Amino acid sequence: MIDKEKIREVNAQRLKAHETEFLALQETLVQKGLSVDDLLHHIQDFQVAVPSWALGAGGTRFGRFSFGGEPRTLSEKIDDVGLIHRLTQSAGSISLHIPWDIPEDANETRARAESHGLAFDAVNSNTFQDQANQELSYKFGSLCHVDSAIRAQAIQHNQEVIDIGRSLGSKSLTVWLSDGSSFPGQLNLRRALERTLDSLKQIYAYMPSDWKLFIEYKPYEPNFYSTVIADWGTSHLLATECGDRAYTLVDLGHHLPNTNIEQIVSTLIWRGKLGGFHFNDSKYGDDDLTVGAIKPYQLFLIFNELVEGMTNSANSNPPIAWMIDASHNIKDPLEDLMQSLEAIRLAYAQALIVNQADLQRAQQHNDPTLCQEILQDAFRTDVRPLVREARRRSGGALHPIEAFRHLKIRHKLIAQRGLHAIASGL
Amino acid sequence: MIDKEKIREVNAQRLKAHETEFLALQETLVQKGLSVDDLLHHIQDFQVAVPSWALGAGGTRFGRFSFGGEPRTLSEKIDDVGLIHRLTQSAGSISLHIPWDIPEDANETRARAESHGLAFDAVNSNTFQDQANQELSYKFGSLCHVDSAIRAQAIQHNQEVIDIGRSLGSKSLTVWLSDGSSFPGQLNLRRALERTLDSLKQIYAYMPSDWKLFIEYKPYEPNFYSTVIADWGTSHLLATECGDRAYTLVDLGHHLPNTNIEQIVSTLIWRGKLGGFHFNDSKYGDDDLTVGAIKPYQLFLIFNELVEGMTNSANSNPPIAWMIDASHNIKDPLEDLMQSLEAIRLAYAQALIVNQADLQRAQQHNDPTLCQEILQDAFRTDVRPLVREARRRSGGALHPIEAFRHLKIRHKLIAQRGLHAIASGL
Amino acid sequence: MIDKEKIREVNAQRLKAHETEFLALQETLVQKGLSVDDLLHHIQDFQVAVPSWALGAGGTRFGRFSFGGEPRTLSEKIDDVGLIHRLTQSAGSISLHIPWDIPEDANETRARAESHGLAFDAVNSNTFQDQANQELSYKFGSLCHVDSAIRAQAIQHNQEVIDIGRSLGSKSLTVWLSDGSSFPGQLNLRRALERTLDSLKQIYAYMPSDWKLFIEYKPYEPNFYSTVIADWGTSHLLATECGDRAYTLVDLGHHLPNTNIEQIVSTLIWRGKLGGFHFNDSKYGDDDLTVGAIKPYQLFLIFNELVEGMTNSANSNPPIAWMIDASHNIKDPLEDLMQSLEAIRLAYAQALIVNQADLQRAQQHNDPTLCQEILQDAFRTDVRPLVREARRRSGGALHPIEAFRHLKIRHKLIAQRGLHAIASGL
Amino acid sequence: MIDKEKIREVNAQRLKAHETEFLALQETLVQKGLSVDDLLHHIQDFQVAVPSWALGAGGTRFGRFSFGGEPRTLSEKIDDVGLIHRLTQSAGSISLHIPWDIPEDANETRARAESHGLAFDAVNSNTFQDQANQELSYKFGSLCHVDSAIRAQAIQHNQEVIDIGRSLGSKSLTVWLSDGSSFPGQLNLRRALERTLDSLKQIYAYMPSDWKLFIEYKPYEPNFYSTVIADWGTSHLLATECGDRAYTLVDLGHHLPNTNIEQIVSTLIWRGKLGGFHFNDSKYGDDDLTVGAIKPYQLFLIFNELVEGMTNSANSNPPIAWMIDASHNIKDPLEDLMQSLEAIRLAYAQALIVNQADLQRAQQHNDPTLCQEILQDAFRTDVRPLVREARRRSGGALHPIEAFRHLKIRHKLIAQRGLHAIASGL
Repeated sequence: MIDKEKIREVNAQRLKAHETEFLALQETLVQKGLSVDDLLHHIQDFQVAVPSWALGAGGTRFGRFSFGGEPRTLSEKIDDVGLIHRLTQSAGSISLHIPWDIPEDANETRARAESHGLAFDAVNSNTFQDQANQELSYKFGSLCHVDSAIRAQAIQHNQEVIDIGRSLGSKSLTVWLSDGSSFPGQLNLRRALERTLDSLKQIYAYMPSDWKLFIEYKPYEPNFYSTVIADWGTSHLLATECGDRAYTLVDLGHHLPNTNIEQIVSTLIWRGKLGGFHFNDSKYGDDDLTVGAIKPYQLFLIFNELVEGMTNSANSNPPIAWMIDASHNIKDPLEDLMQSLEAIRLAYAQALIVNQADLQRAQQHNDPTLCQEILQDAFRTDVRPLVREARRRSGGALHPIEAFRHLKIRHKLIAQRGLHAIASGL
Repeated sequence: MIDKEKIREVNAQRLKAHETEFLALQETLVQKGLSVDDLLHHIQDFQVAVPSWALGAGGTRFGRFSFGGEPRTLSEKIDDVGLIHRLTQSAGSISLHIPWDIPEDANETRARAESHGLAFDAVNSNTFQDQANQELSYKFGSLCHVDSAIRAQAIQHNQEVIDIGRSLGSKSLTVWLSDGSSFPGQLNLRRALERTLDSLKQIYAYMPSDWKLFIEYKPYEPNFYSTVIADWGTSHLLATECGDRAYTLVDLGHHLPNTNIEQIVSTLIWRGKLGGFHFNDSKYGDDDLTVGAIKPYQLFLIFNELVEGMTNSANSNPPIAWMIDASHNIKDPLEDLMQSLEAIRLAYAQALIVNQADLQRAQQHNDPTLCQEILQDAFRTDVRPLVREARRRSGGALHPIEAFRHLKIRHKLIAQRGLHAIASGL
Repeated sequence: MIDKEKIREVNAQRLKAHETEFLALQETLVQKGLSVDDLLHHIQDFQVAVPSWALGAGGTRFGRFSFGGEPRTLSEKIDDVGLIHRLTQSAGSISLHIPWDIPEDANETRARAESHGLAFDAVNSNTFQDQANQELSYKFGSLCHVDSAIRAQAIQHNQEVIDIGRSLGSKSLTVWLSDGSSFPGQLNLRRALERTLDSLKQIYAYMPSDWKLFIEYKPYEPNFYSTVIADWGTSHLLATECGDRAYTLVDLGHHLPNTNIEQIVSTLIWRGKLGGFHFNDSKYGDDDLTVGAIKPYQLFLIFNELVEGMTNSANSNPPIAWMIDASHNIKDPLEDLMQSLEAIRLAYAQALIVNQADLQRAQQHNDPTLCQEILQDAFRTDVRPLVREARRRSGGALHPIEAFRHLKIRHKLIAQRGLHAIASGL
Repeated sequence: MIDKEKIREVNAQRLKAHETEFLALQETLVQKGLSVDDLLHHIQDFQVAVPSWALGAGGTRFGRFSFGGEPRTLSEKIDDVGLIHRLTQSAGSISLHIPWDIPEDANETRARAESHGLAFDAVNSNTFQDQANQELSYKFGSLCHVDSAIRAQAIQHNQEVIDIGRSLGSKSLTVWLSDGSSFPGQLNLRRALERTLDSLKQIYAYMPSDWKLFIEYKPYEPNFYSTVIADWGTSHLLATECGDRAYTLVDLGHHLPNTNIEQIVSTLIWRGKLGGFHFNDSKYGDDDLTVGAIKPYQLFLIFNELVEGMTNSANSNPPIAWMIDASHNIKDPLEDLMQSLEAIRLAYAQALIVNQADLQRAQQHNDPTLCQEILQDAFRTDVRPLVREARRRSGGALHPIEAFRHLKIRHKLIAQRGLHAIASGL
């Protein structure tokens, strides 16, 4: 664990430059009629979960290049998230994946997380792979399977995941279903959907009354012709049929080319049905790149819908479960996550400073030129000092990646865990 | 109008060859346990509407190359559809577009259609263009507009379209809404959707109790950032909120790249919410090409879902309103429509001969190799003789385009209407 | 024409705020080791051509909503570009489209342009439409046509365009060829390409020895199956075969989904074959939206390749012809162009401040985390004060659109030209 | 090895039905003026290579479901291809992947292949993965790497692959390069391309004078921002720079959405630069599905270009190296390959019966309606009896998959090799 004092020391070298930049920005924002304190509080409060499978190197079907010092156990994974949280003060929870991360002793696991200031976010089930001792195979699906015994096994697995989640204090289950088909005709599409709904209802019924179910959608991969829950419309349909505590989960990479994702976000908030959010970025498919690495403006537009929608929508959408879901194929996983966390907070800060009153007026006058000027004024404002200040006030590092490198943390992890440690997961 | 005798004469030259081919196919189908008479009846009954705007040359924003002999009036448009129906026996109705085709005398118009054996299918409203004497502009939307006066005007227009439809015997209204935005921020996405729902409800309320409302969706064009009703999920949401007689309409060209359209079809039938269908084909966007010109296998897969779904779905989906919606930029519009009609019936016939029992068994055994063999066996069967026989039995031409050319119909139309006649519409 | 004094007056109200912002930015840049004067000179020198067809409202195949005060003549078009240039000091040339803008008196036209400080950039031919008195139709192509007489007509048209360009001082011809096919089989793809090369060679041969030929590519629209010059590879092949003064022209909107355009730019510069550049933005297809409205980060990445490539490439790529090519469907065309000009200069300025030495070092160390930090540091820097200062020093408006509105220029244009004036063009 | 007599026995049960169908088709084809014997010879001669890595179950980054009886050694892989060839008589060669399939004794390996009637097609190098004992890592590229030592290692690997290929009688090397970047800025795009060209030239120089180099292209995966050889234009540029015996290789799955692949094929044949072809099918990305499973009409259109181009192009394109490159994630790999082989021959047969003279005439008259009729007449003709007859005459099975199942070959392979055998490869 990094000492708070260490962070203060590292910050010291950059503090003066930061203060100059922050003061200049503060003045600009105040002139726009914004309360910088309010902004800072909002930014400080914005916490994103890190999934337990994101702490090692990811790969593609063509291979995987491992990274030194990967966490070998759940405890080490929690330590890694704690480390990121210490530096960034924005990764306040961890999202577990079962069966990759079954805690041996729930109390101990909880305690370890608490020592890092971490909570347990949504738990994730896995029916897209076969595990070593699994009785029936998910090769041809799980919740949608033609064979009721396989559906029962998959439902039971989800119920066990809920049990594990309860023991840790989680309050929601995320179901990402890879079920689908790779060839036309392989599946009766309608019946597969019917069976899936039936299975989801059984999982929903098992949840404690204060839990939420998040239903993820994805158009393709690992199936290449159809996926049972392929788009937000299908997820929303299933969530509506399941009940009030079932919601749609949006993963930024799970869309067909050119999809207007911010519009989907807006529609779901209107219905009060946006439950969870998986951040990443992509250029081609579900590339799972660092958040903000490819389309930072789209990320800002999405946050603009989120901020405006959560504030003004008549239907009350519950607080959204935020999570990073990226794959670290070539970057250091911890650095990659910190870049993502930074990009998220920057987009959020930009969305917070949009002049909503002016924007609404320009919309009222059908003045697209002015609407664009207003939005881009927020986007083009360099809000990095604001995000840094929020982090500093919470005790984090002004420049987390710099601090991470300066403190030689990766070296220490390698020394501790070895060069060829491999994290469980994909 | 083409004399029935003329068609018989033209057919005579090809009859013997046809009979040989048909008998061979008949034997193959009988060996598969199929009733050829049943197949022929189904094919004969499958009628597709032709829209009144499809009878002249279409164009792009870069220009339009007109075609000789285009119909100058609604009456001439009806004659053209009648002509196609005479040759193909598969275009038994016409779908009017208001205000391009307001009948001067409804009774006369009805009588003219009846003389060709044509009914009036869904009527279509137009709030994507401004008309010459229109009071308020749709430049920034219609049913979604921020200005309630413009929404009222658009609602009233739809009500007038319903009135016109009633006078002609139509039983449904298709709303294609181009409303949306071309720039981020231009529109509050959530509120625009809210206003649209409110407007649609007023239109729905105005409909006679035996009418249906078809809500079309489209991701982009003519707006290039967002479209209010962008996907099936949004259309389905709006239709569900409007009421039992509101349905989603699928246009094949209105999808993002790589969309699995047959899955959407399947889901909508499952919900009993597939109301209408617009046929065309495309490679890039809403290209509005001849049906079956680019992706004939996808068309077959869609028909496979339609045939199976309409037969077996627990929810009762009402009969679907079929229409061709293509743009004839370089082909003779009438020949183009006849190619489309043929492609539709071929795909339908292929879907009808799929061995559903075998397919279900192979699906039950998770045997994707066999599922593909079964589907492709139907697709690769040359069903053209079957479709020709169905047409012949109804009194149509064995080879409609050949007959059209042989009878020099385009020459006659040009002689009658002139080389530079231009059909009203786009 | 707007008085320089007027601009100074308008600027006065914003000057103090600007100076504060500029000084702060200047300090930041100096600390990074940059010469702000050099930056300002580069930015001031960056001039972009405005095409003569972009000054009126654009439209789609579904219609067009006209804008008041559109220029009715070539002279008025030149005036409009002059007006933009006066305000922005970055639109120093005009690109004519023949036959929409044939000057009646070349000397007079030249003089008018010079009075605005405008030069004549590349001239553009048009063989994608038929003109009123045209002998043979381009419905089925022009330079690729199966009929040699039509090819000859199209070649001759291009030669006339060169003649007109010479009379005005242009030094290059841009050929955008819509030739292609909408249906499989319609065209023998190989022979069409062969014929096109042959035609281009004849046009090339006609050019004066100090002229350049720019060959544009586009994957689809207005043809929807194949376009003869569909991608950069084909354009580059043709340009190479034509000769040293033939180049590829990149239009940002002319790519398939997800194309990495900056890589194409980089490859063409490597070969010394990037001749021209058409700016716009898009989300779906060739949407022709305001530059920077949808993907500002991609624009920056492209400029990063341009700046680095033009500086360091071993092959000497000639200076590139920059032009805006957008369609103003709902924004005021002049405001739209000014937003585009601003977005271009912002992206250019961001690219200029990339720390190339650090970036190269990080690339050398295969440190993608750091590479991203370096690039995004430039992108996230708010360079607006720098671009404004460059404009101010050239005598332009600090805030061109504000000035345009403040000076009620659109009102004056409407008063002068009428509410229903329509610019020639699409 | 399957006994020829066994195949004759299995065929016997289907022979009568086949003969009836074949005779009917023969008559149809003869009436069209085609020589059925010529067709049969062409089809019999069309042989496709099977890659050594395609004989086991494939997977995605999310996992892999293995298949029983996978070949454990190179010898068993050769046996599997031999088995497919025996049944289909269309898989006459094998394409090795190094280092997965290094022969221990080249003579023995050659002899084994010859005993199955198999030749060795192109050899494939692998620099997209790190091997167990590899000195330097390809994590950040190989032929494009910034570090010259890594480039040297990758060049040397390719040279060793050539040596192995020589020992087996191969005459070509296929280079698929995954080199690229996943983040903007990670790579200097221009210099990476320069270095790649330099490396390829060294590999080219090492090749024996009767060898060919095939340069494959792919837009993305496993890199998700840029790939050094991303499109045919880049591959063609590199091949041209390397020399006369360097060619472009087209893999059907390696294109951006909506690419017109047949046009690329046509252009490359025009330049005499189409060297190799990898068959598969896909809906979303590089899905590597069974050939013809998703877009059989596109496959036919590609073959139409191949047949016409190879016959008529002025430039002499050399014979093309055909290979299947699919991933068998859920189907039995051997059945999957046989479905692919069938789909390829069907598309080839359809292309062979296109009435080229009529098509050319219709193109000459700009008659897209008729062009489509002519093409689709060939496509809609059920040529399965023709392909079966060709196979029967060569001694193969009328229905290879049926025979494979009837003879219980998979059961025997499992009995012989075990249920959990895993093929080397991905």
